[in-house]
Amino acid sequence: MAISLQENERLDDLQRNGLKIIQKRDGFCFGMDAVLLSGFAKIKSGERTLDMGTGTGIIPLLLSAKTKGAYFAGLEIQAEMAKMAARSVALNGLEEKIEIIQGDIKEAGKLFKAASFDVVTANPPYMNDAHGLKNPMEEKAVARHEILCTLEDVIREGAGLLKTGGRMYMVHRPHRLAELIGLLSKYRMEPKRLKFVHPYLDKAANMVLIEAVRGGGAWLKLEAPVIVYKEPGMFTDEIYEIYGY
Amino acid sequence: MAISLQENERLDDLQRNGLKIIQKRDGFCFGMDAVLLSGFAKIKSGERTLDMGTGTGIIPLLLSAKTKGAYFAGLEIQAEMAKMAARSVALNGLEEKIEIIQGDIKEAGKLFKAASFDVVTANPPYMNDAHGLKNPMEEKAVARHEILCTLEDVIREGAGLLKTGGRMYMVHRPHRLAELIGLLSKYRMEPKRLKFVHPYLDKAANMVLIEAVRGGGAWLKLEAPVIVYKEPGMFTDEIYEIYGY
Repeated sequence: MAISLQENERLDDLQRNGLKIIQKRDGFCFGMDAVLLSGFAKIKSGERTLDMGTGTGIIPLLLSAKTKGAYFAGLEIQAEMAKMAARSVALNGLEEKIEIIQGDIKEAGKLFKAASFDVVTANPPYMNDAHGLKNPMEEKAVARHEILCTLEDVIREGAGLLKTGGRMYMVHRPHRLAELIGLLSKYRMEPKRLKFVHPYLDKAANMVLIEAVRGGGAWLKLEAPVIVYKEPGMFTDEIYEIYGY
Repeated sequence: MAISLQENERLDDLQRNGLKIIQKRDGFCFGMDAVLLSGFAKIKSGERTLDMGTGTGIIPLLLSAKTKGAYFAGLEIQAEMAKMAARSVALNGLEEKIEIIQGDIKEAGKLFKAASFDVVTANPPYMNDAHGLKNPMEEKAVARHEILCTLEDVIREGAGLLKTGGRMYMVHRPHRLAELIGLLSKYRMEPKRLKFVHPYLDKAANMVLIEAVRGGGAWLKLEAPVIVYKEPGMFTDEIYEIYGY
């Protein structure tokens, strides 16, 4: 189909199944965290997935290409962002598989039927009010700071939309790991897989990938770490693989 | 001083400051977990440390050599094990610095004054009743299974003996990480440093090292992982360093 980009937009190639994505030139662009999350999430044939706070729609787009999931919903509160994500879906001819819904994570339990998803994914804002400077551009600030929703909102609403045994996949910052695990427990989501991402083998982790199972038993697997760089400017083979080169 | 070993004992060289340790030929011997914990723990000049469930006394022995701590208490419930640990202390002439106390972790709060330690260390039994086969030799079983004390006992009693701002250092299995973090929160111990140990870079972690601070603020550092083997039979440089070669 014809591509119609607005003046401040650009078209990026996702290097997978010929997928393209629309992003703003000066707005929030997806990062390595979204790509790593889509590599970490396991989605089985026929499953229904909800991405909470989908932004550009990067996670449903990648998951639709990488997995055999049947249906991917992307929930996004910012109207302009949701429209752009829907245009990316249309551009790739994926309207049958991916649906972008404009709405508030805090009310996700009203927008969707309880226990109607097999999988929930989320790449939520990392910073709570105590941490970091707020970005003056509102769109970026909403993606990075807990302005419109908190980590607890995401986990509470996501848990309610999952079937028993359903999985939640999140990427977050390790500095909030204790809180993350505490909140998952509170909503009967048992952490089952954890994977840390370190920029270099000898550096502290800057991302954590987590799988939690609704009503699961207590046994966690701490997977091999992801190391991003072999040396400055040179990605490890694992990163090239995840990016699909 | 003269060394008097019993028939079923052996004398091992700790490769540090000429330290020696007595261990049973067929009983529980210290493992890499104790050595890694003693490398992970940070003990400042003049501080007082309690090791809960000290077994052979390996952790106080190593910490007395590696740090400038003033005093190390080792609490051990098994009478024979406690006596052997005390003989190792005497053998190394460290009676001024290390004291082995026979007693029950569950009653540590009665054996020592509240808030009287700067640091608590513990390498507790990893297996709760749900996991693993019990070792038929009682001494080994007590070291590996939560027969005489639970993880909650260790954390509750340890927390009560720490000053505000005091640190707890533990080594445990990653599969119980969610429970570990939940229990630390329950006793106002904030996880501040986590380090995972992977046998190989591309394998799941089999140990976790954790530092938690009594009454600390919420900010966790997920440190670079420890990788044990470069290839089968060949330790990484880091492991040689920790062992003091």
